[in-house]
Amino acid sequence: MNIHRIVRDLVSTSRVPTLHGKSLRVVEDDSGDLEVALDPVGTRPGDFVITISTSAARHATGDYRITTDLTIGGIIDHWSEERWRD
Amino acid sequence: MNIHRIVRDLVSTSRVPTLHGKSLRVVEDDSGDLEVALDPVGTRPGDFVITISTSAARHATGDYRITTDLTIGGIIDHWSEERWRD
Amino acid sequence: MNIHRIVRDLVSTSRVPTLHGKSLRVVEDDSGDLEVALDPVGTRPGDFVITISTSAARHATGDYRITTDLTIGGIIDHWSEERWRD
Amino acid sequence: MNIHRIVRDLVSTSRVPTLHGKSLRVVEDDSGDLEVALDPVGTRPGDFVITISTSAARHATGDYRITTDLTIGGIIDHWSEERWRD
Amino acid sequence: MNIHRIVRDLVSTSRVPTLHGKSLRVVEDDSGDLEVALDPVGTRPGDFVITISTSAARHATGDYRITTDLTIGGIIDHWSEERWRD
Repeated sequence: MNIHRIVRDLVSTSRVPTLHGKSLRVVEDDSGDLEVALDPVGTRPGDFVITISTSAARHATGDYRITTDLTIGGIIDHWSEERWRD
Repeated sequence: MNIHRIVRDLVSTSRVPTLHGKSLRVVEDDSGDLEVALDPVGTRPGDFVITISTSAARHATGDYRITTDLTIGGIIDHWSEERWRD
Repeated sequence: MNIHRIVRDLVSTSRVPTLHGKSLRVVEDDSGDLEVALDPVGTRPGDFVITISTSAARHATGDYRITTDLTIGGIIDHWSEERWRD
Repeated sequence: MNIHRIVRDLVSTSRVPTLHGKSLRVVEDDSGDLEVALDPVGTRPGDFVITISTSAARHATGDYRITTDLTIGGIIDHWSEERWRD
Repeated sequence: MNIHRIVRDLVSTSRVPTLHGKSLRVVEDDSGDLEVALDPVGTRPGDFVITISTSAARHATGDYRITTDLTIGGIIDHWSEERWRD
């Protein structure tokens, strides 16, 4: 799993049915690279989170028919940008 | 999931049967690297989209027997090149 | 999916049974990095092809028991090295 | 599989149910890049370990319903930072 | 699939049960980056091999319950370091 920071919500009106009604977040890694993750946890911009990829991402949503390849698995306690870089 | 921009259609007359008749698009990421994605949404060149990889890519087409490893999951509203780079 | 160019055949006499009798090709990407792909299409050196990875690679062979992680999905029409680099 | 070194425990109070009660470790690779792995083995900071990714990560926990994409598969005997770099 | 060279055996006394008794090899790619692969073929240091990743790695062992994400699929005939770099 990777460590990402929540940047903002992602708005996409035209989606495949298997992503309808799901909360999507733009997340960044420690290099500033952006990806999009499904959020079953309820996060806010600035939160540091662990993200789950590959087939585990679908199962982590609670419904494996949801077609995500990156899902937020939890909010990390006591993390900071300094710790990220050490 | 990743954020890609649609570049153009990809024409491939000689394909495996599990990709017959499917719309394929050349997409680029924020570094200009090119990949090929299956398009079940209906996109146009210049659209910014979210793309789904790994086994979720097959399920996102609506028919898991379609052998894609990258599928367009939705068109992003209100995205721009500037936002991509920030 | 990615865009690769066929470099040459790969000869491997000692293989796992799940790859016996399959045509393998050395392919290169636009950086010249080499990978090995299973070829169910019938390609020749110099062809530009789309390649399918992850679990879709097995299904694209027509027999999911074939243990490839990269399978040629089609020959691209009207592609050239110039287009690759643009 | 990759070779990682255990850095520290990761604390995440708010998690998806499929990761509840599991031991998570921050691990680093030979470039110092950080990832998060599930630990079914019982490791300590400084241990060099092999890590298993993709769908095998779930099965390596002993319960494939656990939604990890990176699981510690074993502690490496007789490894050192020098060997890592050679 | 990728092309790797066998470096040495990997010794790991404390493993998850799904890797017990399996031969593991440290392998390097053409950049010298190290990974760990399961060896169902029987290789020796210096051999050039093709390696299979993702879910195909498990099936290539002959028993999909073995939790590897990288398995040696065959020994390459007539390969050399020069060919690797061309």
